[in-house]
Amino acid sequence: MRIAIVPGDGIGKEVVSATLPALTWLSDTFGLGLTYDVLDWGADRWLAEGTGLPDGAIDLLRKEYAAVLLGALGDPRIPDMAHGREILLGLRTGLDLYVNHRPLDLAHGTVDLYRENTQGLYSQVGGAVSGQGRITVAMDECVYTRDTVERFVRNCLLHLRAAGRRKVTLVHKANAVPHTGRLWQEVFRAELARVPELTGAEEYVDAFCYHLVRDAFAYEGVLAPNMFGDIISDIGAALMGGLGLACSASVCPETGFALFEPVHGSAPDIAGQGIANPYATAMCLAMLLGHLGHADAATLLRDCVLEAGHTDAATPDLGGTGTTDGFMSAVLALMDKR
Amino acid sequence: MRIAIVPGDGIGKEVVSATLPALTWLSDTFGLGLTYDVLDWGADRWLAEGTGLPDGAIDLLRKEYAAVLLGALGDPRIPDMAHGREILLGLRTGLDLYVNHRPLDLAHGTVDLYRENTQGLYSQVGGAVSGQGRITVAMDECVYTRDTVERFVRNCLLHLRAAGRRKVTLVHKANAVPHTGRLWQEVFRAELARVPELTGAEEYVDAFCYHLVRDAFAYEGVLAPNMFGDIISDIGAALMGGLGLACSASVCPETGFALFEPVHGSAPDIAGQGIANPYATAMCLAMLLGHLGHADAATLLRDCVLEAGHTDAATPDLGGTGTTDGFMSAVLALMDKR
Ligand SMILES: CC(C)[C@H](C(=O)O)[C@@H](O)C(=O)O
Ligand SMILES: CC(C)[C@H](C(=O)O)[C@@H](O)C(=O)O
Repeated sequence: MRIAIVPGDGIGKEVVSATLPALTWLSDTFGLGLTYDVLDWGADRWLAEGTGLPDGAIDLLRKEYAAVLLGALGDPRIPDMAHGREILLGLRTGLDLYVNHRPLDLAHGTVDLYRENTQGLYSQVGGAVSGQGRITVAMDECVYTRDTVERFVRNCLLHLRAAGRRKVTLVHKANAVPHTGRLWQEVFRAELARVPELTGAEEYVDAFCYHLVRDAFAYEGVLAPNMFGDIISDIGAALMGGLGLACSASVCPETGFALFEPVHGSAPDIAGQGIANPYATAMCLAMLLGHLGHADAATLLRDCVLEAGHTDAATPDLGGTGTTDGFMSAVLALMDKR
Repeated sequence: MRIAIVPGDGIGKEVVSATLPALTWLSDTFGLGLTYDVLDWGADRWLAEGTGLPDGAIDLLRKEYAAVLLGALGDPRIPDMAHGREILLGLRTGLDLYVNHRPLDLAHGTVDLYRENTQGLYSQVGGAVSGQGRITVAMDECVYTRDTVERFVRNCLLHLRAAGRRKVTLVHKANAVPHTGRLWQEVFRAELARVPELTGAEEYVDAFCYHLVRDAFAYEGVLAPNMFGDIISDIGAALMGGLGLACSASVCPETGFALFEPVHGSAPDIAGQGIANPYATAMCLAMLLGHLGHADAATLLRDCVLEAGHTDAATPDLGGTGTTDGFMSAVLALMDKR
């Protein structure tokens, strides 16, 4: 089984390169037979060749790889992030990675945030009217089709049930954004009726964000349309203690193909200094291993990352004095001792 | 000068009725000549007569009143909040109250959040395709016209400059929601160039929400499109210490007409118990008085609300043992002593 590694831009390159030895070590130690290739998609290639996602990339991934581990995309030389949009949104839609799962690890336990990853305000339907070099009116369409909402909701509910969850909250804004809001409510209620193990709640996105900041322990599973999910996951990262800790998986449940990436960006301000926190990327790798069915390897990595995070080997953002590579060496040393 | 009082639903009625004696007292004491009428718009009238915003309401307000003080809208008997949408969105667009100002009072000072109040995802452009009683595709259009963004940004920048602010941050999502995102960036940069006293920053909404939770002191003035502003103001209320404290003003800078309302909702769960917190409504009244040019009365009310908030007369949500009316009596007693 091969993994596609896309380091991307800025600190993405550093956190991914620091994490790869753990992948090799775990594959060797547990006999997982995992190999990887590093793909150079990102700002440098975009600027040199104008290529974001190369022709045939989606087919290549589908045929040759089991999953993608992505660092981060974003470069000050491309202020509108055209390359990042082409690569990230291209992978999400091209591989139909419609479930984005972001576990928010909080003091009381984990809140499972599921974000719909393909439509809504991200559908890229819209346009602008310009005159005399100025935009006069601009439109971005928030579109949802029933089957997209249905497959997403159904899948998340089954996951939550399998994980022994009891409660699930739909985040919406049907009181002001009525059409897509009502579609989500309609589907949520219908699907929920088929999963009696779960109690449902519905909350307006503004009230939800308020309560998430105040009483995150009130939530177990959360389902959100694309744009709201994007915002909520960053609030979640803030509650977790920092962007350096938050990881995410974008999955196509039908094919099993998945892409794992930290929630943080490419952080050009600290790139090249060797102090970026590889914690979230290592947690992504643990998610990836778990997803491929290697639960033991995933648990070992996860436990050792958590443990190393409490030592002085942690990077400065966590109050330690460690470096990017040093932190992952500490993780490897802990794994070796177990 | 007359004020239109719209208590609305649930605790809206209680917090408004508790606050009215302060309005009368301040008008008498400072000789402001303010009177008011109570208008019965809300769920009861909607259910009895099907009327949300009565015919001619907008003209009536424009002609007869200087401002509106609104409690809250929302009733469990109207789950889709059709009446609330008709009244609230009707007032915002009918009176062209395009600037929504929500001061976030935090430990380090106030962050001035300005939310565009009339377009974006709230434009009510959209629809759904249904077949066999089920929605198959739904669309809500996020629309912005240049003049709407321009007048909003220009006005907010002038306000921020007049308030001695140095920094202003635009919240957007141009990397994923490109058309409206770019319009906002284009206008923001052009308008900012005309106000050299202000330094501008631009932030993606997800990153912004992360930083707001982590380091709110980094912000002075914040400009946000409608939907993002809705979410941010609730996060802000959570950081302030509770929805019971947050007030807002919706203003038409050209006519000067303004509507003041607490950020909290009608809270049906605690309605009728006399324990709802009138703090935010009283702060709305202070904003209203300030807006009408009565700075002394506004400052006195504001100071006494803050002071009473630290006494046992505070309502249970603030850790006190007070009631809705009791809290405002304490405020009145403090005003009387000064
Ligand atoms: C009730 C709802 C339509 C409204 C809004 O979203 O604007 C409310 O949340 C607010 O912030 O005033
Ligand atoms: C980079 C951007 C387009 C992306 C998104 O909004 O989805 C990012 O914020 C994320 O959450 O993965």
